[in-house]
Amino acid sequence: MKHPISRFPVPELGKLPDDIRQKILEVQEKAGFVPNVFLTLAHRPDEFRAFFAYHDALLLRESGLSKGDKEMIIVATSGANHCLYCVVAHGALLRIYEKKPLIADQVAVNYRKADITPRQKAMLDFAMKVCLDSAAVGESDFAALREHGFSDEDAWDIAGITGLFGLSNRMANVASIRPNDEFYLMGRAPRAGG
Amino acid sequence: MKHPISRFPVPELGKLPDDIRQKILEVQEKAGFVPNVFLTLAHRPDEFRAFFAYHDALLLRESGLSKGDKEMIIVATSGANHCLYCVVAHGALLRIYEKKPLIADQVAVNYRKADITPRQKAMLDFAMKVCLDSAAVGESDFAALREHGFSDEDAWDIAGITGLFGLSNRMANVASIRPNDEFYLMGRAPRAGG
Amino acid sequence: MKHPISRFPVPELGKLPDDIRQKILEVQEKAGFVPNVFLTLAHRPDEFRAFFAYHDALLLRESGLSKGDKEMIIVATSGANHCLYCVVAHGALLRIYEKKPLIADQVAVNYRKADITPRQKAMLDFAMKVCLDSAAVGESDFAALREHGFSDEDAWDIAGITGLFGLSNRMANVASIRPNDEFYLMGRAPRAGG
Amino acid sequence: MKHPISRFPVPELGKLPDDIRQKILEVQEKAGFVPNVFLTLAHRPDEFRAFFAYHDALLLRESGLSKGDKEMIIVATSGANHCLYCVVAHGALLRIYEKKPLIADQVAVNYRKADITPRQKAMLDFAMKVCLDSAAVGESDFAALREHGFSDEDAWDIAGITGLFGLSNRMANVASIRPNDEFYLMGRAPRAGG
Amino acid sequence: MKHPISRFPVPELGKLPDDIRQKILEVQEKAGFVPNVFLTLAHRPDEFRAFFAYHDALLLRESGLSKGDKEMIIVATSGANHCLYCVVAHGALLRIYEKKPLIADQVAVNYRKADITPRQKAMLDFAMKVCLDSAAVGESDFAALREHGFSDEDAWDIAGITGLFGLSNRMANVASIRPNDEFYLMGRAPRAGG
Amino acid sequence: MKHPISRFPVPELGKLPDDIRQKILEVQEKAGFVPNVFLTLAHRPDEFRAFFAYHDALLLRESGLSKGDKEMIIVATSGANHCLYCVVAHGALLRIYEKKPLIADQVAVNYRKADITPRQKAMLDFAMKVCLDSAAVGESDFAALREHGFSDEDAWDIAGITGLFGLSNRMANVASIRPNDEFYLMGRAPRAGG
Repeated sequence: MKHPISRFPVPELGKLPDDIRQKILEVQEKAGFVPNVFLTLAHRPDEFRAFFAYHDALLLRESGLSKGDKEMIIVATSGANHCLYCVVAHGALLRIYEKKPLIADQVAVNYRKADITPRQKAMLDFAMKVCLDSAAVGESDFAALREHGFSDEDAWDIAGITGLFGLSNRMANVASIRPNDEFYLMGRAPRAGG
Repeated sequence: MKHPISRFPVPELGKLPDDIRQKILEVQEKAGFVPNVFLTLAHRPDEFRAFFAYHDALLLRESGLSKGDKEMIIVATSGANHCLYCVVAHGALLRIYEKKPLIADQVAVNYRKADITPRQKAMLDFAMKVCLDSAAVGESDFAALREHGFSDEDAWDIAGITGLFGLSNRMANVASIRPNDEFYLMGRAPRAGG
Repeated sequence: MKHPISRFPVPELGKLPDDIRQKILEVQEKAGFVPNVFLTLAHRPDEFRAFFAYHDALLLRESGLSKGDKEMIIVATSGANHCLYCVVAHGALLRIYEKKPLIADQVAVNYRKADITPRQKAMLDFAMKVCLDSAAVGESDFAALREHGFSDEDAWDIAGITGLFGLSNRMANVASIRPNDEFYLMGRAPRAGG
Repeated sequence: MKHPISRFPVPELGKLPDDIRQKILEVQEKAGFVPNVFLTLAHRPDEFRAFFAYHDALLLRESGLSKGDKEMIIVATSGANHCLYCVVAHGALLRIYEKKPLIADQVAVNYRKADITPRQKAMLDFAMKVCLDSAAVGESDFAALREHGFSDEDAWDIAGITGLFGLSNRMANVASIRPNDEFYLMGRAPRAGG
Repeated sequence: MKHPISRFPVPELGKLPDDIRQKILEVQEKAGFVPNVFLTLAHRPDEFRAFFAYHDALLLRESGLSKGDKEMIIVATSGANHCLYCVVAHGALLRIYEKKPLIADQVAVNYRKADITPRQKAMLDFAMKVCLDSAAVGESDFAALREHGFSDEDAWDIAGITGLFGLSNRMANVASIRPNDEFYLMGRAPRAGG
Repeated sequence: MKHPISRFPVPELGKLPDDIRQKILEVQEKAGFVPNVFLTLAHRPDEFRAFFAYHDALLLRESGLSKGDKEMIIVATSGANHCLYCVVAHGALLRIYEKKPLIADQVAVNYRKADITPRQKAMLDFAMKVCLDSAAVGESDFAALREHGFSDEDAWDIAGITGLFGLSNRMANVASIRPNDEFYLMGRAPRAGG
């Protein structure tokens, strides 16, 4: 590999604790490769476990937000935090879940110009305020969400995802975690019949 | 209670899953009261478990940072994020661990004027850059830490704590989590013989 | 004294001009100690006289603002200017005048989460705009104040206090004026019967 | 067409002045499609002519900057200005000129993490300062460029390209100029033998 | 000449291409002196031609904006970009076109306090948003313009002038282009009978 | 009078307290007109007295700063605070004291491009940091001043003037204090034999 995937030591898969190795092998099975965030965060097994537990709690739970909505929040706020890993890796997921090859670049650069619904725009308005100025979030922001049918629990989801990936963005920026080359192209093929 | 401790529903202790109730009772045993962050985050048990697992992984591990150093990072960056809960609750812990009744207010308002060591100031310089502009963190920032004896692993700890409490700050701001009244006074009594 | 109270020379009380020494002795009589801002600013007697004349003109005049309101403005804007001296010293006065042991920390960190009235929140909205972006203050800001019963003269008071302590914040930051240890605890004891 | 390519009227090719239609047909011949910026800016023929004359003067002249360097400046500064059209369209050109399928996303999100040379990083440091704080550009910035072999004329080129695309970014943002779908995929196929 | 008018080479008039020398002589004829921007930008003849072609296309076209309106946009946005050349040179033109000796200083420092019409204030609100945060410009901004009678074409003019002088501001800042002494006094004499 | 000079009541000269009327008449005698700041601030006589006492203490004292240096600080920081009154009124004084008709516009727009000495540039670097980010002022800033021969007392003067006019800027912005027309032209006539 030409470029290091982290400025910190990257553990060998064979030397990782069983549960972590198992989780990584499952991801590899599903994705066809191991996303670098798994190997690089495994440098700290306990933090790895906690991060992915938090991730699954927010990303896999039943919610008023679709899978695509959730990835959209990650891409928009990771763009605001200038986190290359998350924009590229979650951009791939966003394209796939939304079945829209153009959506990730749009959301990462300027979500106001993206091909998204007014409801999604309101969702991202809230997420960006949580990302950039959470101290000023107040009842009028919840009201703006409600106008688009978002419940308080949905607002919690938006805030939680924004916060968790704010943590992830900071770790990826500090550790210079490199996105796998595979992510850049995933989901970019135009929809058949689209 | 006059003031709500969260704008989201707060679960009754008796209705919480056993492991969470158990953890909360242990904290209550130790602190003499239940810090509101436990009750308010327990609204989402899986996120609660993940948050405190992450917290313990970073805060309880052996490290080049002392317990006081770690709380100092939390107070400084929570000040930058204008998070009342974390400034007040972790300010109390910081006073206690450092045995300095004045330190928390100093660090929360302007760490450059605080009664801290040059090593601690370098630590907070790094933490504040991770908090406010992580995309610009680079090798010169690690070098500045090394001049004060911080290893790369210590840098990871600083970044991790800053990132995790950036998440916590955002949740507390969005949910208006209220610090317990008890925290405000803890550790403020002057040191005997100090 | 372990820590210097100013990076500039601090005059001896006995060598100060009579009127200044007199004023300082009066404050000492009343407070039980000499707040460091008096000794440190006395380095320049004429500026000392002018500062406290301005201070008294704004803080002691009859006004639509209570004493507590005025200290609240000082604490909030000094927080925004990251001035340790003013947050700590005027935080003490704010707790005492408002008879609220928690109020100063709340207002210094994020006044939107403080136990204050909607009227006080509108007052602080105006003060923060004067503090951070006075060039954009316009008639809509005065109108927002009027909705809460503030007159134009009250608006002048808010602006004047914000401006005067903006000056004070800058002097205290540049001179590293250290708050007296006494301030940190003042007014923190819970109200009897409160 | 599902999405409008501009919020302003878009002229029909057949009704454009000859020289502009001719230029557009040449671009179409070369690229296989008409980039939307040509049709949308042709709404104002004289501005169209001037913009592309400026563009050609800077982009086609002999210079210490390669074609790839120039596109890299456009992508980085358009990212800072959140201009979707320029990030996407010039990102395609950057990938092609540099023969690096990943480079555009890297530069648009955070050039400090991109697979570029130290010389290119210095070039982008200068460009970003011109983009975001040109009033503070001074001799030390030219000196930093010289350390990497950039002449004063190269500095002019960097500033000119940054300035011209700052204009283009603003027009594209105000007019909501939509990037052609074709750009998103161009140059993303991995290099054969790479 | 005491002060250089550019940090880049300034061509001699006699050695310039004919069309450029001709244009410069015409300006000299009209103004009584050669504005430094002409000589300094002539260092790059092709860019010179393109810049003034764009300038004339926007500044000389029939429009809902008067000549004074256009210069007002240049002065306000050049103030925001801290461009000395454009504030001083276009400030002179603004005073002359508007026949108001005070207007340029007012607009450059704080247009909200300037002696301008509400319509002009709305125009500058739009221009400043294009200058400072064009990514956030949206339909509500066009609507605010329409309330004051501005058409979409007028909005394009405002954006174009703001963008073009954003380019000019950056070149003048990077090249330290010096305003001619003559500009500072032009148009300052009080209107006779005014 | 076409334009109001304040959005607050302006007292009649005849109804002012004797000392204030006397001071105003002296200024009028000297300047040939009454600067509006005197009449508008006289709305609050005690604040008026304190402001001008502070002003005189800082502006009239013996100092390592010349009269021109002091006005230069006022103009630069008032520019940063977008205060029309102070830029225009103190710009006039700056031109007169420095005998440089161009200096005020240069300093107000971008002091880095002004015809000032390296020593004055260092002075303004310090003043601007006090104005915009006083919490970050530290020993390295004092050291930079010392390299240009400024003493600690000079640093206090710079900070005091910046702070006092930060107060004045905020009052003038909030009260919309209008500069007298006379100021705009004062000191603009070229120096005889200059």
